[in-house]
Amino acid sequence: MSGIGIIATLRVQPDKKAEFEAVFAELAPAVRANEPGNSFYKLFRTAEAGVYKVLECYDDEAAVAAHRASDHFRTLGAKLGPCLAGAPEIESLPGV
Amino acid sequence: MSGIGIIATLRVQPDKKAEFEAVFAELAPAVRANEPGNSFYKLFRTAEAGVYKVLECYDDEAAVAAHRASDHFRTLGAKLGPCLAGAPEIESLPGV
Repeated sequence: MSGIGIIATLRVQPDKKAEFEAVFAELAPAVRANEPGNSFYKLFRTAEAGVYKVLECYDDEAAVAAHRASDHFRTLGAKLGPCLAGAPEIESLPGV
Repeated sequence: MSGIGIIATLRVQPDKKAEFEAVFAELAPAVRANEPGNSFYKLFRTAEAGVYKVLECYDDEAAVAAHRASDHFRTLGAKLGPCLAGAPEIESLPGV
């Protein structure tokens, strides 16, 4: 096994999309700049309005834990939470 | 919009998993080494046996087209096809 992929599906409230995207525009570069165990972290829209997917890749479980414990994720994640219309769906994928 | 993400879901025949993974082990580095418009290309297992997901990211539609037209994708893709148990599902995601 090599690496861990994550597909995070986030459903955003209709009137919060601009705010959500603005917070994410801070979060994504902070992840890439400060997490040596992260190799990819990017936000995408889907075909369904208000539904986003974040594609992520980490070296190992320790890198995933470091992401979740990071100051930038905690601080900016707290701003993302109120934009969401439901709990995030997280699919964790072992790398081949 | 910035970039195009792709989640390709591939269902592999039970007795073809090793062959599929071996071909992919050639394909992934060829994509990363030869496609300047590709920024991520990695194979993952899922929770369902024999079902894989490829997470991909390209700069733009021209880079996606260049991927599909590349010699490495055509040559190695021809070896992947017989390993599959059905048509790939391709989800294309516009970057935010």
